[in-house]
Amino acid sequence: MALFQKDEYLERLAKTKRKMTEVGIDVLVVSDPANMNYLCGYDGWSFYVPQCVVVSLDRDVPLWIGRGMDVAGARHTTFLTDSDIIGYPDHYVQSLERHSMNFVGDTIRERGWGTKVVGVEMDAYYFTARSYAELEKSLPDARFANADLLVNWIRLIKSNGEIAFMQEAGQIANRVMAKAIERLEPGVRECDAVAAVYQAQMSGTEEFGGDYPSIVPMMPTGEKTSAPHLTWTDAPYENEQMVNLELAACRHRYHCPIARTAYLGKNPPPKLVELAEHTVEGLNLTLDAIKPGMHAEEVELVWRRHIAKAGLEKESRIGYAMGLNYPPDWGEHTASLRPGDKTVLAPNMTFHMILGMWMDNYGFECSESFRITASGCETFANFPRKLFVKS
Amino acid sequence: MALFQKDEYLERLAKTKRKMTEVGIDVLVVSDPANMNYLCGYDGWSFYVPQCVVVSLDRDVPLWIGRGMDVAGARHTTFLTDSDIIGYPDHYVQSLERHSMNFVGDTIRERGWGTKVVGVEMDAYYFTARSYAELEKSLPDARFANADLLVNWIRLIKSNGEIAFMQEAGQIANRVMAKAIERLEPGVRECDAVAAVYQAQMSGTEEFGGDYPSIVPMMPTGEKTSAPHLTWTDAPYENEQMVNLELAACRHRYHCPIARTAYLGKNPPPKLVELAEHTVEGLNLTLDAIKPGMHAEEVELVWRRHIAKAGLEKESRIGYAMGLNYPPDWGEHTASLRPGDKTVLAPNMTFHMILGMWMDNYGFECSESFRITASGCETFANFPRKLFVKS
Repeated sequence: MALFQKDEYLERLAKTKRKMTEVGIDVLVVSDPANMNYLCGYDGWSFYVPQCVVVSLDRDVPLWIGRGMDVAGARHTTFLTDSDIIGYPDHYVQSLERHSMNFVGDTIRERGWGTKVVGVEMDAYYFTARSYAELEKSLPDARFANADLLVNWIRLIKSNGEIAFMQEAGQIANRVMAKAIERLEPGVRECDAVAAVYQAQMSGTEEFGGDYPSIVPMMPTGEKTSAPHLTWTDAPYENEQMVNLELAACRHRYHCPIARTAYLGKNPPPKLVELAEHTVEGLNLTLDAIKPGMHAEEVELVWRRHIAKAGLEKESRIGYAMGLNYPPDWGEHTASLRPGDKTVLAPNMTFHMILGMWMDNYGFECSESFRITASGCETFANFPRKLFVKS
Repeated sequence: MALFQKDEYLERLAKTKRKMTEVGIDVLVVSDPANMNYLCGYDGWSFYVPQCVVVSLDRDVPLWIGRGMDVAGARHTTFLTDSDIIGYPDHYVQSLERHSMNFVGDTIRERGWGTKVVGVEMDAYYFTARSYAELEKSLPDARFANADLLVNWIRLIKSNGEIAFMQEAGQIANRVMAKAIERLEPGVRECDAVAAVYQAQMSGTEEFGGDYPSIVPMMPTGEKTSAPHLTWTDAPYENEQMVNLELAACRHRYHCPIARTAYLGKNPPPKLVELAEHTVEGLNLTLDAIKPGMHAEEVELVWRRHIAKAGLEKESRIGYAMGLNYPPDWGEHTASLRPGDKTVLAPNMTFHMILGMWMDNYGFECSESFRITASGCETFANFPRKLFVKS
């Protein structure tokens, strides 16, 4: 059974078809697992083989095409009926002679779509260079168009049902961060603190469980705080050190990322304490300033002006749209809170705003995931914004 | 500091260059995160942006090219020196105007490799259709060749150092499976059992910690056992039901997958008990038959002949090469234990053999990860092979 009512999927499909018509695409091959989920509900760890959802202007509902053994999963998680679900034989899988995208191309031709304009998500994670080459080979009479992010942009404004899952993710996120800070102590191995985080992510609350977030927990300390994407080791956390906590919770593939900074020891450097105060003040002030109708770049400007007063600046974007997703990223690759982004904020857009301030050998970060409301914004988690000192 | 001695990376590079020479490739652009790690040590959760390792026949060591903010991570985890590590500016990231692969192409041209034969991994997970198109655009005078799996095949035989990490993963796998079976009980929510599994995966042993496996835990029950890639829910496990446990442990990105079946309740159906006996007997017998020098397909034949005696057959392959990897898969996409695969088994090749027998409404699976030795094979984990009945 799909997560949402059929009507909601049909509305998403109607929006997708309107956009396809606008840009002149007849048949859309959707490979991004989050977009596949969005359009029909499909949810499974099967994106390591080629699979897609095919939306055609002349067919009410899409086709799901994937590996034969995942047909049962498609029946279980989508609103589609058996005639919409097509599995390819297992001899296509990791074969040296044939490629699953030839099967997809053949299916598209058999449906009479072989001479149409076919949109493909050129930069979607699991749509490889060879997937495209094989699809082109099987559809010699089609015209191809780049439909990258077409569905992602439609995902920008969430339904109330989607928001409800993000609020549940927010409740889990409170527990995840509390558990991380509780577990962090000098002498505790990084892997054991990470284990506690995972435990909290999956156990969720008494009322509902958690799903795997699209990015693993990041809890660097010491010199590794300057290398943002390294994962943990089994070395113990040391005394008088800073730890960055970039964590998240997930509910039915909907995310609530949350970041905080902790200091292990009795003597946090005064400059770190001061930086934390500036940053948290800036976060509060920027969240307070958010209103529907603003441009995304204006949000960044509020923050930039605030930290300029303290003589600081931050180069990268301060936030991005996020929600439904799969590894390796929970960001939606659409709107960003950064100079030049003219996206007009509207109710139920959802962002992760992450303020990380990095000096030569120390730093502080604090983040919130939130939705735009009718009059401002509302965070999904509810966790103190401050430097956590564990002495 | 890289995981292995520099000499080991140089040996891997020498093998890669020999293969490149053999197939006529001058410059190899390696995008598969496992291959990147293999050739220089790089290990970070940054594969959600374009990055690569470039091996050229005329340069001793490769270039690492990735996002500017990951340069520190490359310094930290590879054997390369600063002049081999190149970061692209952050305005390439998720930009609508420019693509990081243009930066990679420009770098290749600047090094004088613009008219060479450039190998690309056409079907690697994070090498998208657009990545290839942009690289082609930036290298108009290059000739492109498909170098898919070139490095993967070199990874087939592991070094003793790699085997040591897989043995450590095996020790963690014992604990992971024990914890899963301990935690499984009617009334326990699926998400809580999964939480315990994650906890065990990361905590590892007293001596060493665990890393995140490339695939999430799969613990389906009830009708979902027929949909192999669905993840967990927060529903409680029920009484008198079967649970499949497809789990793994990971150490420094080296995996030990392990699968077992449990039955919750007092009354496992006699046909399930019987199927379990046949399957375990087949697993034991097949492992015993393995010798270096055999063809991969001959291993499958031993198993097939055994179950034929019980009037059974299994369609899909029964195993595949695995070891070092990143999400979404721990398999290496090279040798398989299946008809037609003529790979000659040699010491320190490593496989996951997974025997899953699916009947109409019940089934049993049991797996082992192992290496080929000088005289046979040796499993990494050491966990009882049987149907676990929890009454």
